[in-house]
Amino acid sequence: MRELRKDPVLNRWVIISTERGKRPLEPGKDYDHFSGFDPARDPFKEGNEHLTPAEIYAVRPKGSQPNGPGWKVRVIPNKYPALKIEGDLNPKGYGLYDKMNGIGAHEVVIESPDPFQQLHDLPLSSIVDVFNTFKLRIDDLSRDKRFAYVLAFKNHGQAAGASLRHSHSQIIATPIVPKRVMEELYGAQAHWRVKRRSIFVDIVDQELLTQERIVFENEHMLAICPFASTSPFEIHIIPKRQQSDFRRAAIPEIQALSEALKACLLKWQGAFGAAPYNFLLHTAPNDTDQSGIRQEFPLLDAFYCWHIEMFPRLTRTAGFEWGTGYYINPTPPEEAAEFLREVKLEDL
Amino acid sequence: MRELRKDPVLNRWVIISTERGKRPLEPGKDYDHFSGFDPARDPFKEGNEHLTPAEIYAVRPKGSQPNGPGWKVRVIPNKYPALKIEGDLNPKGYGLYDKMNGIGAHEVVIESPDPFQQLHDLPLSSIVDVFNTFKLRIDDLSRDKRFAYVLAFKNHGQAAGASLRHSHSQIIATPIVPKRVMEELYGAQAHWRVKRRSIFVDIVDQELLTQERIVFENEHMLAICPFASTSPFEIHIIPKRQQSDFRRAAIPEIQALSEALKACLLKWQGAFGAAPYNFLLHTAPNDTDQSGIRQEFPLLDAFYCWHIEMFPRLTRTAGFEWGTGYYINPTPPEEAAEFLREVKLEDL
Repeated sequence: MRELRKDPVLNRWVIISTERGKRPLEPGKDYDHFSGFDPARDPFKEGNEHLTPAEIYAVRPKGSQPNGPGWKVRVIPNKYPALKIEGDLNPKGYGLYDKMNGIGAHEVVIESPDPFQQLHDLPLSSIVDVFNTFKLRIDDLSRDKRFAYVLAFKNHGQAAGASLRHSHSQIIATPIVPKRVMEELYGAQAHWRVKRRSIFVDIVDQELLTQERIVFENEHMLAICPFASTSPFEIHIIPKRQQSDFRRAAIPEIQALSEALKACLLKWQGAFGAAPYNFLLHTAPNDTDQSGIRQEFPLLDAFYCWHIEMFPRLTRTAGFEWGTGYYINPTPPEEAAEFLREVKLEDL
Repeated sequence: MRELRKDPVLNRWVIISTERGKRPLEPGKDYDHFSGFDPARDPFKEGNEHLTPAEIYAVRPKGSQPNGPGWKVRVIPNKYPALKIEGDLNPKGYGLYDKMNGIGAHEVVIESPDPFQQLHDLPLSSIVDVFNTFKLRIDDLSRDKRFAYVLAFKNHGQAAGASLRHSHSQIIATPIVPKRVMEELYGAQAHWRVKRRSIFVDIVDQELLTQERIVFENEHMLAICPFASTSPFEIHIIPKRQQSDFRRAAIPEIQALSEALKACLLKWQGAFGAAPYNFLLHTAPNDTDQSGIRQEFPLLDAFYCWHIEMFPRLTRTAGFEWGTGYYINPTPPEEAAEFLREVKLEDL
């Protein structure tokens, strides 16, 4: 069963997907140590391509064959997808309630052929390959008029939701724009209406003015601990050039983003050692019949900006946070940013 | 440092509270077994009243002395409060951003004098005492015109955010209405505008019609696995009589609520054994200058209804959920409800 259901009070959609419950979990908890991990049986390892579904895309040198070795980044369908690719949305009422078929795409981006290297270990050029892969997959999936949003994200470590320890991220295409992204659009549009400026540009300017929450900066990117961080050491990476759609990020911006992400991951490591973490790429939604996004936000390109949100899983969210959407954070972001700034890095 | 900060994009408030980081954590993980737990040092135990701050309220037989033994339920200030009680809100701009002082109340409701009994072990009359205590504390704190919301909730087990294993719940009064409650109000008001009916009454009617998601029912309460459950075995307990404010729940309703809560907790135990869990009591916000709630929702009493939301912590929320507000639930609520219905209970 794969179904999308709308909460009748909150306007929040939930994916009910019994397939997801069937995933195997590798034993062990700490993803930077590999006790109990058998690389020979690692389905994401170079040479084990036969253990996965056929690849959708790969970064490969010319002449290397699909579904064989030689790749640097490899995209495959998720074996336990939350949403399935075939079929129509078929939105329906069910008494009081609203539902539709659980249609979407769920892909895995294998970030390295090596079972032992984690994302932060990879050379900068490989991280650039990963982001370019995100760009290509988002672009391809966005052409499907059933999908209103394509989200790229990473779960690192079991406590952050990963079920395999070979370094990978995920792409999910959904017929509904995630609620959090809708909230960003409403907030950014409200700011635009008053100021005629992008709130994201204003945040970058404010952070450059006070400097107190900056973690890392290069020519094109600014990494900050956000003013209203919900959890300790949370980081947002925001491009300095206003751009709603990640697919339009330029080559030097992808380069700068890769550098900023690697720097932030290594600074986390330097600050508190290996920890589970998540990151997400927020970008502009697609305009579909279902989303009606350009009708609701005609000036979206002026006021929205793609960005990365990343957070280590250092604290547990309790019932209070879960049931109220009101977060308690014990670490002021200014202190977190200062701590991270002081972690010195070698050449990236 | 205790500060409330507003996310400039999401309109979401965050509590930055360095005091919360100082809480001690008891060793061990499983709250239904007490290895490594020394009841002699348990600050919530009857006889150890001197180990806590002075009590705010207690259910005591006539003649027993405050801060001494003899109580059945005892309310004390949280020793590591997320918000502090003294001071003015003093809302201020900070460049682009908005903040105010971290003013509020944070209380602990000790549910039993016995260090070993958990909430589900208590006799029904003790659970009634706990809910009556919630009612009294919410009523008292609501008189403070700085507080827009008073939330009663429980974290059971470390994975659910509890730091002490003696059975207790918490009350937090905040100057800001939690975002989730605001969303409920917007959703319920939108339904009212179209239907002139409470969405909560419509949900109760729909659930009674199909029966498929009912977990437990008595004269005044309906416990269901909600149609768009975000996590496996999530339960909502909704009163059959529409009533916005929990403080106006009648004596037989509190009795029925206590019975429903105990039945649901025991059904969870029967279905999957001891598990960490959270529950929250959602009720109508207070009208304050800061909240302006009656201006924004003049018909709130007609369309909003207090209720309990409870969820066991059986799955980890991953980055996808956290960063999108879009939940993936592997267990259809109809299956969860059927499973729970089949757990037979002795007399409560």
